[in-house]
Amino acid sequence: MAKIEVCLSPELLRLHQLDDKIVVVIDILRATSCMVTAFAHRIASILPVATLEESATFGLQGYITAAERNGLKMEGFDLDNSPFSYMDPVLQGKKICMTTTNGTKAILMSARAQKVLIGSFLNQKAICDYLYLRSLDVVLVCAGWKGQVNAEDTLFAGAIVEELKHAFSIGNDSALLAQSLYVSKRNHMLDFLRCSSHFQRLSRLNIHRDIEFCLQTSIYDCLPRLEGDHLISNH
Amino acid sequence: MAKIEVCLSPELLRLHQLDDKIVVVIDILRATSCMVTAFAHRIASILPVATLEESATFGLQGYITAAERNGLKMEGFDLDNSPFSYMDPVLQGKKICMTTTNGTKAILMSARAQKVLIGSFLNQKAICDYLYLRSLDVVLVCAGWKGQVNAEDTLFAGAIVEELKHAFSIGNDSALLAQSLYVSKRNHMLDFLRCSSHFQRLSRLNIHRDIEFCLQTSIYDCLPRLEGDHLISNH
Repeated sequence: MAKIEVCLSPELLRLHQLDDKIVVVIDILRATSCMVTAFAHRIASILPVATLEESATFGLQGYITAAERNGLKMEGFDLDNSPFSYMDPVLQGKKICMTTTNGTKAILMSARAQKVLIGSFLNQKAICDYLYLRSLDVVLVCAGWKGQVNAEDTLFAGAIVEELKHAFSIGNDSALLAQSLYVSKRNHMLDFLRCSSHFQRLSRLNIHRDIEFCLQTSIYDCLPRLEGDHLISNH
Repeated sequence: MAKIEVCLSPELLRLHQLDDKIVVVIDILRATSCMVTAFAHRIASILPVATLEESATFGLQGYITAAERNGLKMEGFDLDNSPFSYMDPVLQGKKICMTTTNGTKAILMSARAQKVLIGSFLNQKAICDYLYLRSLDVVLVCAGWKGQVNAEDTLFAGAIVEELKHAFSIGNDSALLAQSLYVSKRNHMLDFLRCSSHFQRLSRLNIHRDIEFCLQTSIYDCLPRLEGDHLISNH
């Protein structure tokens, strides 16, 4: 039986062997939710990069640029980190270059895995269906907040562990913790997250609408994955 | 209101500012449970060290030596990592030098805090009473297993957060996670831990008796703390 592990912070990633595994990168508020929304609205690809400088360089090469730090859009770039910004029809077929505080970093750190998928509540069923059909070990990588564990990424990791519990063995205690958290909070996730650090941080930026949007389950069926340097999807 | 934070692994300790805080180091299976048991049985002091070599050197200077790696007692040292070994009356008044896989390392990494306490279910009330009476910020440091988060240390951290929730504000999401885990599992901790990695690891070593012992709540009222290089207690 294949194993499912959870990595609660990119700071713990070095403890995981990734080479022969599928990684699902999770940054619920809001990088991976944005990416899934973007592919559901038919953008062509996303290039995740680490720095603002790289993003600006790719901007000069025709990419649409998205840059967020500390929850805010950076001056001089095209897009912020709100999923609603990625619904714009003018983005269809376009290539986006994206850098965010946590999510794009977690993707780049996971690139050595056999496969890297982008997960969020928005494409939960697509993720679970894919993992269920493979018999490969899985590591769910929570992007966290500047190295700290966060509640919303752990909740979603727990949702995956719970949904796949009959098909996978639980590979580490972080997976047990995440599963337990999800099972006890799944019927009132928004209330629970109101106590969390990131919610309070983002609330100051007035993005309740984004948060509620990102907690919707399986509204999109796209499955973004890393191919070379770029994220692409099935549609 | 003072803050309470949880650090789920020593690997995440660098994200915490410790200078002006009280740290409680937690290694339920079994280092901190052993330390509390030892002080409850009137040993004089414990010197936590990082390496087997240091422990051997202090053995030559008259210390009783305790050395564990991967759950097993190391050849040539006096004591293993079972709490029952620390109840022996011949240890009364003696100095112990201890090195373990995770617990002593977490203590040494926390030494820069204003105060370092040793916590376990066995002295839970003594820990909470002490923290309650101070108005200092607290970091609960889980020793984990070789950097990985573990279930039993997280459970106990959650027990402290839950018990102090009206007197402290929750300082990070790891504290929320630990509290949620404890609240959902407190009435069947042993059953929950049967699924955990460390339980399965230790079960192979036939120490069910140790595990059941370490999950007893507040049977001792000692409060080991770091003074200089040594741990001492109120009795």
